Order: sequence, then structure tokens, then C-alpha cells
Amino acid sequence: MSLKFITAEEAASFVKDGDNVGFSGFTPAGAPKAIPAAIAERAIAEHEKGNPFSIGVLTGASSGDSLDGALTRAKAIKFRAPYQTNKSMRNAINIGEIDYQDLHLSEMAQQVRYGFMGKVNVAIIEACEVTEDGKIYVTTAGGNVPTYCRLADKILIELNSHHSKGLIGMHDMYEPLDPPYRKELAVYTPSTRIGLPYVQVDPAKIVGIVETNVPDEARGFDPADEITTQIGNNVAAFLAKELKAGRIPSTFLPLQSGVGNVANAVLGALGKDMDVPAFEMYTEVIQDSVIDLMLQGRIKFGSCCSLTLTDECLQTIYNNIDFFKDKIVMRPAEISNNPEIIRRLGVISINTAIEVDIYGNVNSTHIGGTKMMNGIGGSGDFTRNAYMSIFTCPSVAKGGNISAIVPMVSHCDHSEHSVNIIITELGVADLRGKSPIQKAEAIIENCVHPDYKQLLWDYLKFAGEGHKGHTPHRIDAALAFHVALAKKGDMKAVNWADYE
Amino acid sequence: MSLKFITAEEAASFVKDGDNVGFSGFTPAGAPKAIPAAIAERAIAEHEKGNPFSIGVLTGASSGDSLDGALTRAKAIKFRAPYQTNKSMRNAINIGEIDYQDLHLSEMAQQVRYGFMGKVNVAIIEACEVTEDGKIYVTTAGGNVPTYCRLADKILIELNSHHSKGLIGMHDMYEPLDPPYRKELAVYTPSTRIGLPYVQVDPAKIVGIVETNVPDEARGFDPADEITTQIGNNVAAFLAKELKAGRIPSTFLPLQSGVGNVANAVLGALGKDMDVPAFEMYTEVIQDSVIDLMLQGRIKFGSCCSLTLTDECLQTIYNNIDFFKDKIVMRPAEISNNPEIIRRLGVISINTAIEVDIYGNVNSTHIGGTKMMNGIGGSGDFTRNAYMSIFTCPSVAKGGNISAIVPMVSHCDHSEHSVNIIITELGVADLRGKSPIQKAEAIIENCVHPDYKQLLWDYLKFAGEGHKGHTPHRIDAALAFHVALAKKGDMKAVNWADYE
Repeated sequence: MSLKFITAEEAASFVKDGDNVGFSGFTPAGAPKAIPAAIAERAIAEHEKGNPFSIGVLTGASSGDSLDGALTRAKAIKFRAPYQTNKSMRNAINIGEIDYQDLHLSEMAQQVRYGFMGKVNVAIIEACEVTEDGKIYVTTAGGNVPTYCRLADKILIELNSHHSKGLIGMHDMYEPLDPPYRKELAVYTPSTRIGLPYVQVDPAKIVGIVETNVPDEARGFDPADEITTQIGNNVAAFLAKELKAGRIPSTFLPLQSGVGNVANAVLGALGKDMDVPAFEMYTEVIQDSVIDLMLQGRIKFGSCCSLTLTDECLQTIYNNIDFFKDKIVMRPAEISNNPEIIRRLGVISINTAIEVDIYGNVNSTHIGGTKMMNGIGGSGDFTRNAYMSIFTCPSVAKGGNISAIVPMVSHCDHSEHSVNIIITELGVADLRGKSPIQKAEAIIENCVHPDYKQLLWDYLKFAGEGHKGHTPHRIDAALAFHVALAKKGDMKAVNWADYE
Repeated sequence: MSLKFITAEEAASFVKDGDNVGFSGFTPAGAPKAIPAAIAERAIAEHEKGNPFSIGVLTGASSGDSLDGALTRAKAIKFRAPYQTNKSMRNAINIGEIDYQDLHLSEMAQQVRYGFMGKVNVAIIEACEVTEDGKIYVTTAGGNVPTYCRLADKILIELNSHHSKGLIGMHDMYEPLDPPYRKELAVYTPSTRIGLPYVQVDPAKIVGIVETNVPDEARGFDPADEITTQIGNNVAAFLAKELKAGRIPSTFLPLQSGVGNVANAVLGALGKDMDVPAFEMYTEVIQDSVIDLMLQGRIKFGSCCSLTLTDECLQTIYNNIDFFKDKIVMRPAEISNNPEIIRRLGVISINTAIEVDIYGNVNSTHIGGTKMMNGIGGSGDFTRNAYMSIFTCPSVAKGGNISAIVPMVSHCDHSEHSVNIIITELGVADLRGKSPIQKAEAIIENCVHPDYKQLLWDYLKFAGEGHKGHTPHRIDAALAFHVALAKKGDMKAVNWADYE
């Protein structure tokens, strides 16, 4: 059959009120841009006519502003999963306008296949190439494309010529069978391939192709400052010490690193630390800093779900495609974040915490226990299955009025059972082989800002008076830091005497 | 070489103050009894002489009273991991006498191998047979025996003739390689075998064998009452409905079920519900109820780490060994609880919660947020990787003064991201595909005891006033149920007006 080229507006007309729509992409990378913007326009027009129009938005992770932002502002989203980072959407979620389910990214595709989220009506996929026999070559992310394409009744393609066809061959697209028929995921190194460079679909389901030429909407991050540089140096020094002690194999192990400027600083420091050998990544997101370290020979290979790069950095890859082609593979999120593979490879995970408590529980999602920041993303997939799980954060925020280390987290995403190491700019708390009280001592001694150190030592003593159990808490004072912040704008305003 | 038979006292003399000792067993099943009791005696004698004597106790999970109980009462334990259920030990942990690290059971062996817990000096293993060339046939549990035997300098055997040699062949002992050399765990059905029926050790490391004839110290559970029966019926009816709706494959899926009388009631109800086909288990612990259902043909196969049975039920197996031999396999904890296999097989997990909050976070470990009950055990391994994760609990405890459903859990072991279904005697809350507020509505409506229903509806309204975010909380009132219990002995004594 021949491919049918249509406009974004025509494409948007295939999406009906109430549909569940599966989008390509993972972060802004690889997400469609023109069709979601046209759906948003259509929603506004329908609403002006007094008609309802809202859809379920299923993605790989976050997306770009012309998807999550435009559809949110058009009030066109009834349900959203599994992750987001958009300012408009975050606000809509926090005022209850959008029902958001924040999910482990490795589980999204299977939960959709298992039928836990209803039918997928339409898939909208950004591609750099599509063939008449239904081979779709996606762009800068694996996302959940194989599953959304297979389950959807209709597929719409954005064929984006801003991306180089040099991307062809850089993907390893694989969709596992479901229980009771699932087999092993035979990935034994970050570079092992188990799938195909494209997604094969029934070409009859491709109802239209929209041609575009637009860059990904990924942004750069702030350059490293003194604090993030020091966090990065502490991570690098810790890993070098573990390597020397034989607790990391001499070949080193693949790294996963979260997204943002702390992650950039960590990678920068690891790149510079010649006690750490050149290494591989098995991660979700490749940022600019990884590409820099590949050019320097410090990163040998990167397995990821997406190339979340500034357009400038992406053009560097496109201009040196022969150099990068055998150093990068993009996989679906179900594979990049898969527990089986992460545990087998022995990935060292490094993620950023919003807050950590003295016993090593981590909040990655909720500001003050209530407001969604982004979502858990892949941090749970990696932390739980890592060889060694590390969380980093600056010791304080908001000019010192917020301590990142609190008596009890206001929301727990990663429990003390799964968290091995906490690192701030001040130092490293190694929680392995320790009881909760020993963990508290290590965290307060090594990671807490001087403004909060005595307050937390006092809490630990106060909580433990009269032997208050394995994990001492004064339950009426456990969230006192958060109450002080809410009522007085400063966690330092806490006074334990108020609770005696 | 020839085997050297010694007394328990002689065996105990091989254990030095400060040693880390790895014990066989998983629950009281398969744990040594005579040697640990003799070590406890030795510790008492040393302490009377004014000498220090305490050891690190590394096991598979919990153990029997002659191990955890006797060593605790002798003040002979400095460190304990990964799980316990003993009354003396629980008390010692909660008053800070024993440093306890509560770990995911699947991770214990690898964390020991990775060097995160120091050296293993001695392994003490209960066996039903041992050969001169170093083949150890363990008894009623896989535990972490392969790893402790390989890493220890010395191995002590309790050769327990109370166990039938019919156990030979019922184990599948396998120890994976560590990263970067680990391969897949090629288990594709509950009955797939990948290892050997014994653990091979260097016979020169076996420094002595103690002959015993003592039963396992496993106990029975209370018979099902009206509440647990209703929970069981609700689980069975829910799974039958999911099967009918096609959200569980028509072949059904393997079940994991926790330990205790709620688990027994659930299995009993599933056994009786003929809408559920005869099924397989991929679980940690096989209890009496599983054996009953095997005899009835309702359970076709059980993969486990231990046979935690009353002695009467164990004798039923020994007397009908030909019937049971091809229906049960015992594996090391690292395999029975492995994320890779649990996710591949699509295990349906059913575990018991201590408390659950309205947003679906689960506390499995800490009474009132501070006092350790047992530990997380395998609940995290199964919940996180399950096809569908279920938590059950009676809606109230302590004569109604404690609600199992609270505004915020006082300790979080399983976050809302990993918990799919909550079931009490009152009904089922299906959390799949829901936002936090929708989850709260489902839980309060379907699972909460009438005495607490209005209080929790009021909290949800109160917390949400002024749009308090994606997960509404009044942070000063989030633990008010626990404060009311601590101060007034009754969660119903909470008054939201106190927090306005």
C-alpha cells in the first residue's frame, strides 16, 4: 500500500473525545510535536462549541511542551501516565484538573498490555523513516512505541526531517511476550542487541503521515555550581574507593545516572577521575555530558531509552554518526529500565532525591508530601535492582530554609530497604550493613548541613528516649520540620520543646 | 576424606567472638538447632567469665527459637540480617540491643557476596545427608546455603535424622555468578530446574558433623475466623472476576502468598472457588494449607524456599513422598524471590499489611512507625515485580481502636507506585489506573471500617481544601491517627478540629 500524507489538522481529526492515545518519546526526545499541538487546537474549538473533548495521554516518560503543555492548557487531558515534567501540567495535576498516575517507567507498557489502563485507541509516533510495508524507524527515543503501535487501532506518524536518517540502526526495538509465555531478556552487556532497528506494524493501521521539520524540545541544564561540583566529586571519590576496596569489580560496572545538573556534575567528576576506568552506561536518558565523555573516550558505550540532548549536541552526533553509531543503543523503556537486566548487569544507580530522612528513606516525587514535582520515573526501577544504589542532593534548599535531610520523609518512594548510599556536598553516608540508628548516625554526621545538624541529633535522642523501637520516632514530631516550613517558612524554626 | 562426627559443644567451639556466621534455613524450617543452642551456652559461659562474645547472625529469613531466641537471650548477637520473627529477638531489636538490618530477602546472598556485610567466617547447615566428597543435602529450606557455604572458612553440619532422606531430590540449588558475569536465571515455569539437588563444597572445609534428631520449630496458625474467611473470599472472588474479564490469562498465573492465618484463609478460599482453575505457586513459604490443596488436586505445583509446616503435615509429605516429590521444589531465597523470575512468570502476589494509607502506601514492618514487628521479608521482592500485587488486612485491630487504613502510613515499605489492590473483610479497592485522590476514594469507600469511614472522608476533604496538591495532606495532621492512639489509646479519638 502507499503512504498517505496528511496535515496535522487532518491527523488530529482521527482522535476522538475519550480516546486513550499512546505517544512516542521519552522526555521531550522523540515525542511528536505537530499532531498533539493540532489536537490541542481541536480541543479548544470543541470546547468553544460546548462539546466535551479530553483524552488519556500515555507516553514513555515526560514529553515536550507542544504535547503535555499544549494539551494541558487546552484542558484536553483526562488521564496521564506514567511521568511528566511540564510546568503547565504539573500545576493542573496539583489542582486536581488532571488525573495523573505516577508509575515505575519499566511497568507502563506491561500494565497497558495487561489491560489495567483500558484500550489504546490511537498511537502517534515521531519517525525519521517509515516504509510502505509498515516499518517505523523512530527518532531519539525508544519509549513505549512497540506496545502502543501494536495495541492501537490507528497509527499516525510524524515524519520529522529535522532528525538525521543516520538514526536508522541505533535502536533495538523489542517487545517481550506476556506471562505465562515470557522468556528471558537476553541482554548481557550494555551493548547486547535483542530486537530490530524498527517497529513492524500492519501498514493498514497507518492512517496518515504528517511531515514536519522541528527540533526536539529538550533543554540544557544550568552549569555546575560549587555545590553540584562537590556532590559530583564526592560520588567519584566514593566509587573510586569502592573499586580500590574490591567491592566494585576491577572492570567497573555500568552506570545509571538521573537527569539534571547534579547528574551532569556527577558524570563530569567521574570523567575526570582517572582512578575510575573508562566505563559504560545502562541508563534511561543520555544527556549532553555523556556525549562529551564519549568524545573524550571516558564513556565507552551508552544504552538508553532516549537521547535527551540540546539540539546543538544532537547535531554533533548527526555530524559524526559513524563515531557514535556503535557507541549508543536506544531501547524501549520496558527494556532500558528492566529489573531483570539492571540486576544482572550490576548497574550502579545514581539518582537525585527531593528529601531523605535520617533512616535512609527517600522522597523523589512530592514537595512537602503533597505537591507532585515530576514523578518517580525510573528511579525505582534502578534503585531497587542496582548493584549499589546512590542518592544525591544538596544538603539544603531555598536559601537554607529547607533541609534535604529530615526526621521522616513526607512521602516515601524508596524505602530504607533499597537505599545504600546518601551523598550531599558535605559527604557520604554508607548505609550498607547498618541498623536504622546506625544509618541515622552516618547520615547526620556526614551529610547534614551545619544549620540542621544539632536539631537532628536532638531529634534522634528525643525520639529514642525510653527505647522508642527499632526506628525511633516521636510520632507527633516526626513531620515537625515540614510543619515548621509550612507555618513559619523555615524548617529551622522547629523547637522540640513544643513536643515534649 | 572421612566425615568427623563431633558434639554440639565441640562444634560451638569453632565459632569465635566477632565472627559472622551464616545459618541454613528459611523460617524455622531447615534452620540448625543444636549448634546455635550450644553457641548460646558458650556465650553465657564466656560472659560469666567476663569475656566478650557476640556474633553476626546471617540467615535465609527468620529461624527457630533455639537459634534466634537462645542466642538473643544469651546476648550473643551483635548484628542480625535479613529477617526475624522471634519474640525475644524482636524485643532486643526494639530496645537497641541488637543491630538489625531488615533486607529484601532476594538481596541478602548477593549483598554478602558483594562484600557489603563483611566476611563470613563459619557456615552452620542442617542437612539430611552429607557425603565424603562434600555434597550437602539440606532439609526443609533452600535459604542462602550455597553462598554461606562457599564464602565460609569453616562449615559445621547438623545431620538431622528427624528429616526423611526422601527430601533428597526436592531441592534445586543454584548460585548465580555476580556482575559483570551474571547470566539469565532460566526458570520459565514454577517447576523449571536450573541447579543441583545438593550444595557442593570443599570437603576439607567441613570441620565437624553433629548428629541430631529434632523436629523443625515451625508452629501452626490460628484457624480462620469470620474476618479472615471473608478476606479470603474477597480475594478469591476478585481473582475470579479478573480471570473472567481477561485481565488474568485463562491458564491462570502462579501465586505467591505470605505467611500466617490470612494467607491460609486466602488459599482456602481459592481452593474452594471452582471459577479459579487448579493453579501453581511460585512463593517463598509453603504452609500446611498448600499441602492440603495439593492433596485435593487444587494446587498442581509449588516452588518455594521452605516447607514451613507443622511436624504433622511434614510427616504427611514424608509418608507420601512419591506423591509430593514431583509437586514441590525448594530453591535458595535468591531464586525463590528473584525479581527476574517473578516478573517473567507473572506472579500474583498476596501479602499482609500492618497498615495501609488512603493513597495506597503500605507499612509491612513497623508498629506505630517505630517498633519492628518482623521485617519486610519477601514482600518487596514479590510486590514490586508481580503481575498484580495485592495487600490484605483486617480493617481494624485491637478491638477497633486501631484502623488498618490511616491518612498516612507511619512507615512506608511499599509505595503507591507498586501496590495494585487492597482487600479487607469489607471489600476490594482496585488502585490500577487511578490518581491518588481516586485511590483514596476507592479505599475509603470499599475497605474502611464503618467506625473510621467518616473520619477518613473528612480528612480527605480537609486535606484537599485549597488544592493541597496531587496527594492532599494536612502535614500537621497526617499522623494524627497515630498520635491519638499513642496519647489516648484509640485512633477514633482524633478530632480534625484540633488541627484547623
